[in-house]
Amino acid sequence: MYNSLKEAVLEANLLLPRYGLVTLTWGNVSQIDRSLGVVAIKPSGVSYDNMTVDDIVVVDLAGQIVDGHLSPSSDTATHLVLYKAFKGISGIVHTHSRHGTIWAQAGMDIPALGTTHADYFYGDIPCTRPLTEDEIRVDYEKNTGKVIVEEFQRRALDPQALPGVVITGHAPFCWGKSAVDAVHNALVLEEVATMALATRALNPAIHIAQELSDKHYFRKHGENAYYGQR
Amino acid sequence: MYNSLKEAVLEANLLLPRYGLVTLTWGNVSQIDRSLGVVAIKPSGVSYDNMTVDDIVVVDLAGQIVDGHLSPSSDTATHLVLYKAFKGISGIVHTHSRHGTIWAQAGMDIPALGTTHADYFYGDIPCTRPLTEDEIRVDYEKNTGKVIVEEFQRRALDPQALPGVVITGHAPFCWGKSAVDAVHNALVLEEVATMALATRALNPAIHIAQELSDKHYFRKHGENAYYGQR
Amino acid sequence: MYNSLKEAVLEANLLLPRYGLVTLTWGNVSQIDRSLGVVAIKPSGVSYDNMTVDDIVVVDLAGQIVDGHLSPSSDTATHLVLYKAFKGISGIVHTHSRHGTIWAQAGMDIPALGTTHADYFYGDIPCTRPLTEDEIRVDYEKNTGKVIVEEFQRRALDPQALPGVVITGHAPFCWGKSAVDAVHNALVLEEVATMALATRALNPAIHIAQELSDKHYFRKHGENAYYGQR
Amino acid sequence: MYNSLKEAVLEANLLLPRYGLVTLTWGNVSQIDRSLGVVAIKPSGVSYDNMTVDDIVVVDLAGQIVDGHLSPSSDTATHLVLYKAFKGISGIVHTHSRHGTIWAQAGMDIPALGTTHADYFYGDIPCTRPLTEDEIRVDYEKNTGKVIVEEFQRRALDPQALPGVVITGHAPFCWGKSAVDAVHNALVLEEVATMALATRALNPAIHIAQELSDKHYFRKHGENAYYGQR
Repeated sequence: MYNSLKEAVLEANLLLPRYGLVTLTWGNVSQIDRSLGVVAIKPSGVSYDNMTVDDIVVVDLAGQIVDGHLSPSSDTATHLVLYKAFKGISGIVHTHSRHGTIWAQAGMDIPALGTTHADYFYGDIPCTRPLTEDEIRVDYEKNTGKVIVEEFQRRALDPQALPGVVITGHAPFCWGKSAVDAVHNALVLEEVATMALATRALNPAIHIAQELSDKHYFRKHGENAYYGQR
Repeated sequence: MYNSLKEAVLEANLLLPRYGLVTLTWGNVSQIDRSLGVVAIKPSGVSYDNMTVDDIVVVDLAGQIVDGHLSPSSDTATHLVLYKAFKGISGIVHTHSRHGTIWAQAGMDIPALGTTHADYFYGDIPCTRPLTEDEIRVDYEKNTGKVIVEEFQRRALDPQALPGVVITGHAPFCWGKSAVDAVHNALVLEEVATMALATRALNPAIHIAQELSDKHYFRKHGENAYYGQR
Repeated sequence: MYNSLKEAVLEANLLLPRYGLVTLTWGNVSQIDRSLGVVAIKPSGVSYDNMTVDDIVVVDLAGQIVDGHLSPSSDTATHLVLYKAFKGISGIVHTHSRHGTIWAQAGMDIPALGTTHADYFYGDIPCTRPLTEDEIRVDYEKNTGKVIVEEFQRRALDPQALPGVVITGHAPFCWGKSAVDAVHNALVLEEVATMALATRALNPAIHIAQELSDKHYFRKHGENAYYGQR
Repeated sequence: MYNSLKEAVLEANLLLPRYGLVTLTWGNVSQIDRSLGVVAIKPSGVSYDNMTVDDIVVVDLAGQIVDGHLSPSSDTATHLVLYKAFKGISGIVHTHSRHGTIWAQAGMDIPALGTTHADYFYGDIPCTRPLTEDEIRVDYEKNTGKVIVEEFQRRALDPQALPGVVITGHAPFCWGKSAVDAVHNALVLEEVATMALATRALNPAIHIAQELSDKHYFRKHGENAYYGQR
């Protein structure tokens, strides 16, 4: 019943080591089936080396296991909050990819500095506020999701045009139209985070021009897109 | 009819992932056959993993497809402008290679700081001016080519002695005697861009001596070259 | 008699090149069997390429060889001091991994800047004081161990909650519940050292909040841990 | 007659791409047979991919080819000057390895900042003065060797204790007891150059203590060495 969903989630999780986005067992990817009201996600603390489709855990939107023999990722509650708030997304990934995490640790937005960024993210990638002591102590993972949603609401950002965030002192979350699409966005976030670090060292005040950002984003997204095969 | 041209372009495109110059489907290489008046180029948004010679698209100098079943790279118009303006070149490559893109995003020339640079590029690798809003809105890819040509004319640079450029806020274009030669130049641009970044951090005012640049460039190029096998 | 101990030590040593933590023959891993009073350790200056279980050397706690045909690592005396002082550990690793060594050379603690660090190390990873001329001249390797122990005592640190250190002008030592666990901690030390370097370049005064460090450390360690499979 | 010499030189040249020390055809390694008065060296501008022992060129100490069908490396004259001046060495390697080249381009010595450096190089790795215009114009490669020798004489350095140099605006040369030993030193130079760059960014004034440098160098070299197998 959940097999194709679990296979999609397995495939996306296995992209993480292939793309160099994870160390050891860090990172997790999920995908939602909104018609069935379930989310398939990586099990907690399991190695990527021998992971099979049977290891993927399926939970309902309350976080209860409906299929699978392992515990789901300890970040499951964050995924669920995001799926509920961001209706247009179907896949989510969390990594501690090196340069995304550097910006998160610095507590700073990843600035849009070139067309590589603009091809995938429409504007600076936001950094959340820190969680309060209370938010950390109780329901930490759920509150991580809520702080992300709050940041997007406060800045009036569209999560489909800005499919990623960095959490102060922690690391990135990305999302997309599917689990694999979310991982592609995580790969791009890592690459633009890497380039932004060195670009700002060379030229501290630089930022992409708005019209160039518009051009590249809408060349690939929306009804007037003309990149790729039609 | 176009088979050897398409094979040369396929081979050069496949060097991009091998040399670590591309992420996902980014990047494209073309080669011109000036006697036939056609350019073979990578299709738009297609993965390198299973690309075959049949996927390569052949266009005429007006950009019309004359062979192939896919859409050509969205950057085709830039390639065509460069082939028309730079008569001595036969291959062009566009990548978002990391360190070349960093200099482009910073809006700065890649300075010639050592003999590695001088072996392939005779002088600083120029950074173009930003495109205007009008140049971005209409015929963006064509205008990207025109801004490159304008930069070479304004500085009186020889495109054969300086086979590459970075575009402000965007990324590098390189070229050469063939598609493969263009990719070799792109690999060197990426390497010298990487080294220049750290060299300038150690010693902000440094530049290669003119006589050392001359020596290394003309050791490999022109009638008095003595590097390699004769 | 020592076969399973030697196999555990071989396996852990072979993880070092796989994880990119060593160059040439640098680095060494050991594991103690406290019931037998012996330590198995890598031989000195031997390549990882063809290392077999027969190459692993077993010494007693006075450093005398009790099994094996090769000389043990020249750092054996450091390992022995640490096993005697830190009763809760069973594996030790020494590497010159790049970014851990950079912090050691700079003579600075690796600051805790994010949850990646907090998941494995409870607080800043300490940097020892320099050894004195006398400590370097006689019993250098033993004194290296003693300076590590002194640093943990002076700061009242728990070696099980902070399973690593950097030695001024030298490189890291890490430890853990086994040889393999020690290597995992060495991998994490290298990753957080890499990220801390760039984080501090972006934001020189940043540090992780204490409550976030507590949350992540105790999510994975101690009686209330809930990360991974139970 | 020259077969074992040529095989040693081939093996050492093939280590360059394996260790990530070269791009394209850059770099060259040689070894001298002082009893026969000949040097075997890589051919100029030939790819490492299909290089065989037959491609290795043997020259006499005047630089005349005595065996082989290809032109020798364009840097052969530099190698010959070094073999004549530094009697205790038998292998030489030239690369444009990234971080060694960065220090060369910056025109700065690679400072000894830790025991990794001290294990192989006894003191800062010197950077030569720039060549004069005359030295560049005529007999450039020979003069490159002479400037290296001059630097070692001026500073009263022992080339066996300091088996490497960086040439202002150019790149490193290393040497050793054999071609393979020279390549090992080149690998270490690249690693310590990488670490020194970031160490100095963290702590600009830091330097290794003299007694620690002595300890590590003489732990591995000379009559009282005790590292490795006896």
